Amino acid sequence: MELNDYIASIPGFPREGIIFRDITPILASPKAMRHVTRKLADFIEDQNATLVLAPEARGFLFGLPAAVEADVAFAPVRKPGKLPRTVVEETYDLEYGTDTLQIHADAIQPGDRVVIVDDLLATGGTVQAIRHMAEKCGAEVVGTAFVVELDDLKGRDRLEDVPILSLVHYEGE
Amino acid sequence: MELNDYIASIPGFPREGIIFRDITPILASPKAMRHVTRKLADFIEDQNATLVLAPEARGFLFGLPAAVEADVAFAPVRKPGKLPRTVVEETYDLEYGTDTLQIHADAIQPGDRVVIVDDLLATGGTVQAIRHMAEKCGAEVVGTAFVVELDDLKGRDRLEDVPILSLVHYEGE
Repeated sequence: MELNDYIASIPGFPREGIIFRDITPILASPKAMRHVTRKLADFIEDQNATLVLAPEARGFLFGLPAAVEADVAFAPVRKPGKLPRTVVEETYDLEYGTDTLQIHADAIQPGDRVVIVDDLLATGGTVQAIRHMAEKCGAEVVGTAFVVELDDLKGRDRLEDVPILSLVHYEGE
Repeated sequence: MELNDYIASIPGFPREGIIFRDITPILASPKAMRHVTRKLADFIEDQNATLVLAPEARGFLFGLPAAVEADVAFAPVRKPGKLPRTVVEETYDLEYGTDTLQIHADAIQPGDRVVIVDDLLATGGTVQAIRHMAEKCGAEVVGTAFVVELDDLKGRDRLEDVPILSLVHYEGE
């Protein structure tokens, strides 16, 4: 399957000079979703992972189906105010300002082998924040997996000691 | 399977007097997720649906796996500013203020038979907004499906002419 055929490139969104990579055509095709889910699950299984973490909202679309396919637990990574029980949290820098993410503290056990899944790897800031939270809980991040990687933004350099799976690569933003 | 065992009840979240129904234990159990996905997919198939719509973020967790299992298309319903192509949108009243949701206009075809999936049915405002968007595009909403229904909030009364599946019922908020 040519997965590129299921990714729409939208110039000028969300602002001038950016090409947005839109994964919604994958969601519209059960066949493409099964393909992506199997690829991500193979990677999760190869890392002997015990837990998948994925950030809201697009990370949920790929992380949870892959976790179920690989028969491992899934925990959602959320913006503040969404999770009702005790959380670990991490604040990290964006291009302008900061963002904070949270995970239920009891969702991660010491010794867990974690794969982080997201739709897209850009600068890697979100993934690094999730990794720090997993490590605070005594878990090890054994892999990161993405549908799309934007090579020019060099997120890979921040994650270089962890195995990375990206299904589609693009140059430029 | 006793699905209630996979829903945590958290009194006082997000504020005094509310009992929050937390579905994250379902996500932590591939077995519970497979059970929920199969139930939702059976309903989608029974309605001869052609498209599943689900709102961010928790709706994604149940709507997409069920759509893939039932072998029909999925389209995400999002907050403003997230979808890069032409959208339909609907603004609706909340307890305090309003909220707006958007769907890619080309994700819904005239004649589509739509099932709306969300984690929880409360007052039904979100589902009604999604239904209006689907109808603006010439589609018919042939079913709505939820993991949890809060019976006292009477969301069901707003949807009474559409088949409703709820896997777990609770009294009170």
